[in-house]
Amino acid sequence: MLLSIPNEEFKARQADFFNKLLEKKCDAAVIFAATDIFYLTGFHFIATERPIGLLVDPNDKWHLIVPRLEHEHAEEYAVMDHVHSYPEYPGTKHPMKYVKEVLQFYGFEGKTIGYDSISYGSPMGYRGPTIDTLIEADFVSLYGIIEEMRFVKSPNEIELIKESCRWGNLAHRLLQKYTKSGISEIEITGKASQEATLTMIETLGSDYKPHGQTASATFRGQVGSESAFPHAVTQNVIMSKGDTLVTGAAAAVFGYDSELERTMFVEEVSKEQEKYFNYMYNAQEVALNAIKSGATYASVEEQVQAYYKQEGITELTKHHTGHNIGLLIHEAPFFDLGDDTIIEPGMVVTVEPGIYVKGVGGFRHSDTVLVTENGIEMLTYYPRDLESLIC
Amino acid sequence: MLLSIPNEEFKARQADFFNKLLEKKCDAAVIFAATDIFYLTGFHFIATERPIGLLVDPNDKWHLIVPRLEHEHAEEYAVMDHVHSYPEYPGTKHPMKYVKEVLQFYGFEGKTIGYDSISYGSPMGYRGPTIDTLIEADFVSLYGIIEEMRFVKSPNEIELIKESCRWGNLAHRLLQKYTKSGISEIEITGKASQEATLTMIETLGSDYKPHGQTASATFRGQVGSESAFPHAVTQNVIMSKGDTLVTGAAAAVFGYDSELERTMFVEEVSKEQEKYFNYMYNAQEVALNAIKSGATYASVEEQVQAYYKQEGITELTKHHTGHNIGLLIHEAPFFDLGDDTIIEPGMVVTVEPGIYVKGVGGFRHSDTVLVTENGIEMLTYYPRDLESLIC
Repeated sequence: MLLSIPNEEFKARQADFFNKLLEKKCDAAVIFAATDIFYLTGFHFIATERPIGLLVDPNDKWHLIVPRLEHEHAEEYAVMDHVHSYPEYPGTKHPMKYVKEVLQFYGFEGKTIGYDSISYGSPMGYRGPTIDTLIEADFVSLYGIIEEMRFVKSPNEIELIKESCRWGNLAHRLLQKYTKSGISEIEITGKASQEATLTMIETLGSDYKPHGQTASATFRGQVGSESAFPHAVTQNVIMSKGDTLVTGAAAAVFGYDSELERTMFVEEVSKEQEKYFNYMYNAQEVALNAIKSGATYASVEEQVQAYYKQEGITELTKHHTGHNIGLLIHEAPFFDLGDDTIIEPGMVVTVEPGIYVKGVGGFRHSDTVLVTENGIEMLTYYPRDLESLIC
Repeated sequence: MLLSIPNEEFKARQADFFNKLLEKKCDAAVIFAATDIFYLTGFHFIATERPIGLLVDPNDKWHLIVPRLEHEHAEEYAVMDHVHSYPEYPGTKHPMKYVKEVLQFYGFEGKTIGYDSISYGSPMGYRGPTIDTLIEADFVSLYGIIEEMRFVKSPNEIELIKESCRWGNLAHRLLQKYTKSGISEIEITGKASQEATLTMIETLGSDYKPHGQTASATFRGQVGSESAFPHAVTQNVIMSKGDTLVTGAAAAVFGYDSELERTMFVEEVSKEQEKYFNYMYNAQEVALNAIKSGATYASVEEQVQAYYKQEGITELTKHHTGHNIGLLIHEAPFFDLGDDTIIEPGMVVTVEPGIYVKGVGGFRHSDTVLVTENGIEMLTYYPRDLESLIC
């Protein structure tokens, strides 16, 4: 049972990245994105106002620079050559002055340095200089390069996502079991999430590290008429008979996540609800059939939109059909008219066309799907048919 | 019982912000930070790869530009003059082209435009142009201006933070009740969080909107030797007799949060643990006594560090003493040697000096404290003494 990415895979990712640097005519790199630092080093940390940077020096040695409070934590968990630390943010000497000293000491000066972001960014009060003011060097944006490395998942990543789907399925089953009129959305989601999490940790044992949220199922406010907002937020609503519900369930496994969403109904379903459910179901079928290695992401959206148009329901749609998923819940590329990326085997995507009807509710399933050589493999496996989804 | 910020307060914040714009010789503004958009409009949303921007036009009319999927949601919940939307990201026409059209139509061209961030930022695959390429205008950074508006809390904000403290306290009490050797940290935190949340929603009723996490208590991996990492992450550890624990408990109330952390011990405490606990306790006392309206944030840290030095324990410390709190868990200013901001009445701060001993554990309490005209008011009220914290 695989529950983490082995250290050799982090080293292989680092080697890949260094080759990409050379292709971009860069000698070295400075990376600030927390997700990408985890992807390259296995160091899962809480991003705050205190900058954390990954520095790749011209000799292919890998450095993390962290605040003092993360020094031993990084040494313990990061796949890395050197860990450096500065005392605090903002400090009497700014953290970026320490970054500058490391850059100088390890020969970044006069080199071509790739960067993902020209300065560290945080809403938590961080202020500081851009990195191109620290030393004399040529700076080249690498924005998106590591994200592109993450497009196609490795066999280990796929295993972790499959493990995530398993526990998302349990959380969803319990969510459905506990849903009934008169009960608060928060009570139902809490009970289902807690029970699924407990079973998960007892089943997997102490090797399971979430690096994200343990098994959980939610309505996120998508209850009754509020479900017509695709990105509703939790509203502490009490369920009523006949409510349309849109759910979500997942579990992070060493940072890898999946997405399982279902349209459900409280106790009974009207003819009108059934009609919109069927449109949504059919749109998802169109999308699942359209996903093929070698096609573009845009082509999937085109086929789904052609279906909407044929049925005359375009005005009931509010978003595109889906996107990649992995370390983040939304990752590029997107099933969008404007995204001409080619679909490749090993990509893991969400398939989630939605229909939204004011006063009636939202209708959206989301499944996590692996692109294979010859088609797709459904990684989420919860029932999709209407009969199975009446609570 | 206050459970949300009234619309008039959002309007007053908008008027304040417009005055600050004029002070900065700006005619208009473009804001992308999700926290600041919530602060100014009351619109709580999930930030993704799809840009959401707040535009303040030269006539002091307020515009939100959102993706199609957020249009009705923004109309329903944002305190706002106009909501505009674009179809999708990336789209066949990029979202920033729609932003450009709004800027042109509402007379931003040729004006002086304040901005918080020169482009929308998201790790979820967003790519797009900087705003200064969209139209001819003078662009002036307003970075930090809204954050500074958030430094001093209003009476309503303080009420919401007090409500948060109440439910954090319950979650923490339950956490302590359920902590014993042989039980997983995840089981204990899940049980305490679920029970506190349930009591919270049943007590407050349907007017309670979390806009964040409902009542929760956690160890976040800070169990036994892992507690020596100040920012440990959940490790799915089983409690053992004698473990040092560092906890955390809180509850979001309409987006406002508090912080309550305690050092606890499983069943028994050694002389060594007691010694470090006492250092931490005394350091927190020093800090609480040092916080005074009119003093600098740095002066508090100086006094705490003088205490560490006097006791010869400086090398056991890894971070400064605390920071403001409100809509974010960490907000500027900081109790840090490098922060000369003056402490003012109405500021709400965390007080959390920490001592970290390899092999023994971490020792940190955190309390949420209101600065008053004549001193401080402790908003968290959980027992701080050793005897009360042995599980």
